[in-house]
Amino acid sequence: MINPKYTVESLNQLGANNMGSHIGMEFTEIGEDFLCAKMPVDHRTTQPFGLLHGGASCVLAETLGSVGSLCYVDEEKYSVVGVEINANHLRSAKSGFVYGKATLLHGGKKLHVWDIKITNEEGKLICISRLTVAVLPKGA
Amino acid sequence: MINPKYTVESLNQLGANNMGSHIGMEFTEIGEDFLCAKMPVDHRTTQPFGLLHGGASCVLAETLGSVGSLCYVDEEKYSVVGVEINANHLRSAKSGFVYGKATLLHGGKKLHVWDIKITNEEGKLICISRLTVAVLPKGA
Amino acid sequence: MINPKYTVESLNQLGANNMGSHIGMEFTEIGEDFLCAKMPVDHRTTQPFGLLHGGASCVLAETLGSVGSLCYVDEEKYSVVGVEINANHLRSAKSGFVYGKATLLHGGKKLHVWDIKITNEEGKLICISRLTVAVLPKGA
Amino acid sequence: MINPKYTVESLNQLGANNMGSHIGMEFTEIGEDFLCAKMPVDHRTTQPFGLLHGGASCVLAETLGSVGSLCYVDEEKYSVVGVEINANHLRSAKSGFVYGKATLLHGGKKLHVWDIKITNEEGKLICISRLTVAVLPKGA
Repeated sequence: MINPKYTVESLNQLGANNMGSHIGMEFTEIGEDFLCAKMPVDHRTTQPFGLLHGGASCVLAETLGSVGSLCYVDEEKYSVVGVEINANHLRSAKSGFVYGKATLLHGGKKLHVWDIKITNEEGKLICISRLTVAVLPKGA
Repeated sequence: MINPKYTVESLNQLGANNMGSHIGMEFTEIGEDFLCAKMPVDHRTTQPFGLLHGGASCVLAETLGSVGSLCYVDEEKYSVVGVEINANHLRSAKSGFVYGKATLLHGGKKLHVWDIKITNEEGKLICISRLTVAVLPKGA
Repeated sequence: MINPKYTVESLNQLGANNMGSHIGMEFTEIGEDFLCAKMPVDHRTTQPFGLLHGGASCVLAETLGSVGSLCYVDEEKYSVVGVEINANHLRSAKSGFVYGKATLLHGGKKLHVWDIKITNEEGKLICISRLTVAVLPKGA
Repeated sequence: MINPKYTVESLNQLGANNMGSHIGMEFTEIGEDFLCAKMPVDHRTTQPFGLLHGGASCVLAETLGSVGSLCYVDEEKYSVVGVEINANHLRSAKSGFVYGKATLLHGGKKLHVWDIKITNEEGKLICISRLTVAVLPKGA
């Protein structure tokens, strides 16, 4: 279960000075086995033709899954690291926000696997991604 | 073969007001079947613990492959769109730059597949990615 | 919608003399946007240590998605071809059957994307896969 | 380095009664950081239209990478398990053999990543795959 000490506010603080905030990402909801964030579609996240950059979707997906894993482990003992990500880009997005939700598919002792779905303002699926996270004992 | 009208300069101009430049990416070399760019490891591209964000590697990989495909097709007739990306994160990076090189593995009429390797300042592989790009007739 | 002319029986006939039947796979259910099959865990599908071969899960996933796509298109006009597959192996299986269900995530004109989940006898997820299928006009 | 006790003969013996031999796969060469096998394109490995089944390519890729990892670790202490596989199918194959070569991209203590390329009789690339293998202490 996600560590109850984590809140949307504390997670947004954690990422206040790096890529997440630099591209406008914000956590919006956290639950027992899921984590949500939104991301703007603007000059910070688009490719040269004004569409959402596929890589931006990956940043959202990888952030959600790896921060999700961080919330699941005992951080005094373990660190987490993204091992593999894959994503299918299904639709384009031109403006507004996109919304990502990561759901834990498999929470093993050594590996977590997350399903991440990203939808547009109309709720249509624009990207589906899967992230594999390794859970590593600290100091090992 | 990559359209000779494209140069490192024109590609950097193309991306001057969007995600690529926002996170500091720069094209550095273009060849017959490859394209290279570098990306800084700083607050624009790191995760909360100061390491290169895996999603940043995906932005670099997806940029290289999809811009590479753009350079291969007759743009009056075709547009290109990233369909699927996958990436393994092999090592972390903390500072300096990382260097991406995309090489065309398969240049079909409808699909391109790119291999993208990202290395650190010491030339060690930190990420390997593969991007599938669809080539679509304009107006279809 | 899946072409109603396809039935579990006709699909099992279609694959009667090739890899699917050779490894014991059988279609079990077909619906509006899904397709199911089962596969035995025995010498036909295991690796040297007696566990289900990860590649066997890929055969099941790729069969379900590509046959699913076949059922969706007008076969007089289109053929379908698997473009990219990915899979996470989550649990091992030693005996009995495993059960695969493919659900269409995205049914575009040129590309289909399928989510395929494989479960064991207890209903636990052992593999999750995603397949990208290209829909190609015949004779093009 | 691959354990010198492994030979093409011993590896073919290891897989004599399971999926590998059932579909006709044979190891052909083993080297310091690579492993090769061939696979027939016939009723054991084709889909209903007589082409090589994409899943068969995955079986070849996953076999090569996971057996490769097995040859790298001290088997008294560690076991290896395929975690994630992905593959792009680039060309079809109708007859003869296809040839797979797995090359170790990353040989970490806990994770191995393999690049697997499959070519046809003319040496053309028909499939490219990447396999992530977890190295697990026995008894843990």
